[in-house]
Amino acid sequence: MSRKYVVGVDLGGTKIATGLGNMEGDLLAVRIIPTQASLGVDGVIERIHSTIYDVLEKAGADIDELYGIGICSPGPVNPKTGMIALAPNLGWENVPLVQLIAKEFPVPVFLENDANAAALGELWFGAGRGVENLLYITVSTGIGGGIVLGGKIYRGRNFMAGEIGHAIFDANSPVQCGCGQYGCIETLASGTAIARIARERIQSGEESMIRSMVDNLDEVDVRIIAQAEEKGDKLAKDVLDNAVRNLGLFIASLLNILDVDRVIIGGGVSKLGSRLFDGINDVIVKNMADIPAKNTPIVPSQTGDNVGILGAIGLVFESIGYSRVG
Amino acid sequence: MSRKYVVGVDLGGTKIATGLGNMEGDLLAVRIIPTQASLGVDGVIERIHSTIYDVLEKAGADIDELYGIGICSPGPVNPKTGMIALAPNLGWENVPLVQLIAKEFPVPVFLENDANAAALGELWFGAGRGVENLLYITVSTGIGGGIVLGGKIYRGRNFMAGEIGHAIFDANSPVQCGCGQYGCIETLASGTAIARIARERIQSGEESMIRSMVDNLDEVDVRIIAQAEEKGDKLAKDVLDNAVRNLGLFIASLLNILDVDRVIIGGGVSKLGSRLFDGINDVIVKNMADIPAKNTPIVPSQTGDNVGILGAIGLVFESIGYSRVG
Repeated sequence: MSRKYVVGVDLGGTKIATGLGNMEGDLLAVRIIPTQASLGVDGVIERIHSTIYDVLEKAGADIDELYGIGICSPGPVNPKTGMIALAPNLGWENVPLVQLIAKEFPVPVFLENDANAAALGELWFGAGRGVENLLYITVSTGIGGGIVLGGKIYRGRNFMAGEIGHAIFDANSPVQCGCGQYGCIETLASGTAIARIARERIQSGEESMIRSMVDNLDEVDVRIIAQAEEKGDKLAKDVLDNAVRNLGLFIASLLNILDVDRVIIGGGVSKLGSRLFDGINDVIVKNMADIPAKNTPIVPSQTGDNVGILGAIGLVFESIGYSRVG
Repeated sequence: MSRKYVVGVDLGGTKIATGLGNMEGDLLAVRIIPTQASLGVDGVIERIHSTIYDVLEKAGADIDELYGIGICSPGPVNPKTGMIALAPNLGWENVPLVQLIAKEFPVPVFLENDANAAALGELWFGAGRGVENLLYITVSTGIGGGIVLGGKIYRGRNFMAGEIGHAIFDANSPVQCGCGQYGCIETLASGTAIARIARERIQSGEESMIRSMVDNLDEVDVRIIAQAEEKGDKLAKDVLDNAVRNLGLFIASLLNILDVDRVIIGGGVSKLGSRLFDGINDVIVKNMADIPAKNTPIVPSQTGDNVGILGAIGLVFESIGYSRVG
C-alpha cells in the first residue's frame, strides 16, 4: 500500500485530540476523548492508541498508509529521544512517549512541545503559509512561543528555544513569575495575568461592573473583562489597554531581536480579535523606531481549535522532509 | 595563481582597519588609517582601496590570490544589494559600497553590519569555534548583537535581526532611548548608560570619589567607575552591580528565547573582565529558572582589537561556503 496519510495527536492534561490528515492537510477524521490522567502512563498510552485506531477506522485508512504519527504535548520534551521530560498536568516525568507509541504502530513517530508544534501547524496549514521565518506566540494561561527559521522549527541547544514568556519586560515589577524571576512578560499580559490584575484592582476598591458580573471574583477572565469593556466599564478598558500595550511593546522587542517575516498570535487571549490586533499594531506604529521591521504583519492564528492536531501533523511533514508544491 | 587569502575591512567613523588573512585565519598584514569621513564617499572609498593595496603588498600577495573581500560597517546595511543604507558616523546614505570596492578589485566583495560580522569573527576565529548556534553581544556605546544559527549568521527579513539593544527591559522606565522607546536595555546597561547613571547620581548629590577623579563629570566612563569601585567607592559599586544585574537578567531572557549553545560578550564594557562575567553568571544562577539553558557558557570575545577585520574575513568564509577541517 502506498503512504498517503499522517496522524497528529494533541496530548493535553484534560483531553487527547487525534486527527488523521491527508498530504494536503485536510483532516479526514478527528477523535477527541478525555485524557483521564489519573489512569497513569500505561492507561493514557492505551487511550492514545485507541484514538489512533479510531481515526484510522473512521477514515478507512490502514496503518501501512501512514507516513508517520506526530505528537505534541505541553512542557519540556526532547524531540531527539522522544521523551517527555516533565508534564506536570499529566503527572509525568521522563516518559519515553515515542517509544510507547511506536511499539504499537510500526511507523515513524515524532514528538514536539505544543508551542513549537503550533508554529509548525501555522507554517504548514495556517497563517504562516508561504513564509520562511515566523514567530508564533500563544497568549493563554501563560505566554509561549515557537520560532520557525528557514522553514524549520528552531529548537535550540536544549530544545527550549521560544520560551518567550520568561523574557523580562518590567525589571522592577514586584510580581514574581512561576519561573522565579520578576517581571516576565507572562506576569503582565497572559490571560491569567490580565484576570489577576483586574481582580486585584477590584479587590483594592476600584469601581467596576465586573463585580456584579460574577458570583466570585475568581471567575473573572479575559472574556468577562472584554464584555465589561464593551458595556463601557473603565477599569476593564484600562486593564485591556495595558495588556495590549505590553504585548505590543514586547512584540516590538522580539522583532528587534528576530526580524521575522510574520508574527502569528494564538491562544485564548487572541480571541479578543481586532481589539487585540488593532491595538498591538497601533502600539507598534506609535512606539517602535522607524525601521522596516515595524511593518512586519502581526496576524491571528488560523488553525483554530485543531491547532494541536495540525501542529503534530506539520511536525511529521517537517520530520520526513515532505514539501508540498505551491 | 591559486586563491589562498582573504581581505577583511573594518570601516568605522574614525578609522579604517584592513587585514589580509590566510585560510587558517592568521592575519599576515594589517593596515589602520584614519577614515577622514569629511572627504566624502569618493575620498573614503579611495582610502579603503589604498589600505587593501597596502596589505596585499605587505603580505606579498596578489589580487588574483584573493577569495574575496569582506567589509563590515556600523548601522543598517543590505548584504544582498551591498548598500550601506545609513551610516550617521560617516554621513552616508544609500552608498553602494560593494559596487565601489568591486570596481577596483575584481573579486567577490561582501558587506555586513559590524555586530553580525563580529559574531562571524567569533564563530570562525574566536570564542565561538566549534559551536553551531551562538549569540554575540557587544556592550559599548550601545548594545548590539549578532545571532549565528546552524553555523550561519541569521539576518532576518530586513537584515536587522540581532538588534537586541532595543528590547524593552524596564517597561516603566522614564528614560527614552535613541530609538524612541522607553526602557530599552541599551538605556540601562550600555557603556553610555552606565556612565550617565553614575553622572546623574553624583549630580543629584550622592557621595563618590569619582567627583575628584575627573575634571569634568562628562569624562566619567566605565573604566573610571571601575577604578573607583576598586578603591572602595560605594556609588561606583552600586552602579556596576545594577548594570551587571540588568545584563545578567537580560541575557537570561535571551536564553529563554534563543537557547543558543554559547553567549559571547565583546565591546568596551566586556573589558571589565571577571567583574562582569562572574557577576552575570551569579545573577543567572540566582534568578533564572532551573532549566538546562541556565548552564549556557557566557564567555568573553576572543577576537580582541581585530574583531572587525576578523569578522569581515569570517563573512567571506561564510559567503563563499568555505569550511575548514576540524
